[in-house]
Amino acid sequence: MMGQLGGRVWVVPGGHIPLDSNGPEPEFTSYDKICVLNTTDAEARLTLTFYYEDAEPVGPYHFAVGPRRIRHIRVNDLIDPEAVRLDRPYGCVLHSPVPVVVQFLRQDTRLSGTVTLTGTMAHPAG
Amino acid sequence: MMGQLGGRVWVVPGGHIPLDSNGPEPEFTSYDKICVLNTTDAEARLTLTFYYEDAEPVGPYHFAVGPRRIRHIRVNDLIDPEAVRLDRPYGCVLHSPVPVVVQFLRQDTRLSGTVTLTGTMAHPAG
Amino acid sequence: MMGQLGGRVWVVPGGHIPLDSNGPEPEFTSYDKICVLNTTDAEARLTLTFYYEDAEPVGPYHFAVGPRRIRHIRVNDLIDPEAVRLDRPYGCVLHSPVPVVVQFLRQDTRLSGTVTLTGTMAHPAG
Amino acid sequence: MMGQLGGRVWVVPGGHIPLDSNGPEPEFTSYDKICVLNTTDAEARLTLTFYYEDAEPVGPYHFAVGPRRIRHIRVNDLIDPEAVRLDRPYGCVLHSPVPVVVQFLRQDTRLSGTVTLTGTMAHPAG
Repeated sequence: MMGQLGGRVWVVPGGHIPLDSNGPEPEFTSYDKICVLNTTDAEARLTLTFYYEDAEPVGPYHFAVGPRRIRHIRVNDLIDPEAVRLDRPYGCVLHSPVPVVVQFLRQDTRLSGTVTLTGTMAHPAG
Repeated sequence: MMGQLGGRVWVVPGGHIPLDSNGPEPEFTSYDKICVLNTTDAEARLTLTFYYEDAEPVGPYHFAVGPRRIRHIRVNDLIDPEAVRLDRPYGCVLHSPVPVVVQFLRQDTRLSGTVTLTGTMAHPAG
Repeated sequence: MMGQLGGRVWVVPGGHIPLDSNGPEPEFTSYDKICVLNTTDAEARLTLTFYYEDAEPVGPYHFAVGPRRIRHIRVNDLIDPEAVRLDRPYGCVLHSPVPVVVQFLRQDTRLSGTVTLTGTMAHPAG
Repeated sequence: MMGQLGGRVWVVPGGHIPLDSNGPEPEFTSYDKICVLNTTDAEARLTLTFYYEDAEPVGPYHFAVGPRRIRHIRVNDLIDPEAVRLDRPYGCVLHSPVPVVVQFLRQDTRLSGTVTLTGTMAHPAG
């Protein structure tokens, strides 16, 4: 019952990993993060596709979220099929074979001595 | 009429109480907060279940929101059946027997001399 | 056509005007703000009801948004039937006779030398 | 299939480009930004209409997002039919002939030595 919460397609149009970071790594590294909750009893084998201003989409990126598990993925850490470059605007679409819920978070420490967070639920598109 | 606003299931995938805090307690303590509005004429006896990256879900946590009342719960303060540890990524699912509306808020004061807030409506899943 | 965008009931569970402020007024005053867009050709005579942790709801508060207009209301400025006190958690429900769209924003300058913003769309409940 | 994600009408009630900026341009300039993801195989020829507190709506503003592309538009940069003034509250409505997804982001560097971000998905209204 709780295993069917959410949707199978989620969209984030406003991705942009800040270029610089200040403070101890990794906790103060600038990042974009995608947070996924899988309440189902099946592993969610997710695929991500990245969209850019000036190039064809890149993907699929694969990662899995176990049954009854969360996973918070730093976009900075996605490297296959290619790294998502810092300071390059992007959007992304997440597909899941089972229902999940997706939240987006940014940490920005470009300016020394500061940290700012912003986030939103991803848009549920299917 | 106003007593039927919202839904009975709400989801937050991106929970993570910051590890450190700076500044006077409790107002500058780092926290995740779950804010619930119950417009109904019945007490909302809520249950929360927490999901993790590397362990089975934990719950139910119980708390109540009176009829025609709000309640802003610091996740830091949830201790039964077990405390939600600092710096451990989590997601949570809230169930209510009556319709409610749920908002998520984080305050982060890890870096001395700074405070940052971020938040979003929880995802309405039922 | 554009005059029918949005809904007639919007909910914000997580209100809380920060207690202190630092910096020049009014631009750096801590506030909660409710931002309304009325695309219709009729004046939107809105009513707001405030919910608390420990008291019956208070309202209605009245304000109007002209046809094809926005209005950004500081909750700090609502005084009739009673002021919304600083540092008191609240939730609010907005009713409109015509469709509108509602966004919530907080500015927090409690800590000297800092400013942080957070916000979210209100929850569309009808 | 992925080319039909999202909707054709999106609304942001809470626009307000901060008046001042501190730090190197353009990366630390205060801005409001509208982020659009077009997963379709057609160019999305978008129109934006801006709403104000004290004047009739202004528009349409035109911009295009290519097939399978994103675009992150700074509201500061919109000048035709007229510039969106700093420090003037506004709301905006985006129309697209093909489905898109829209996210709103603000960067505020009014206070020297600080930067704060806030954002939310736009409201999908059609």
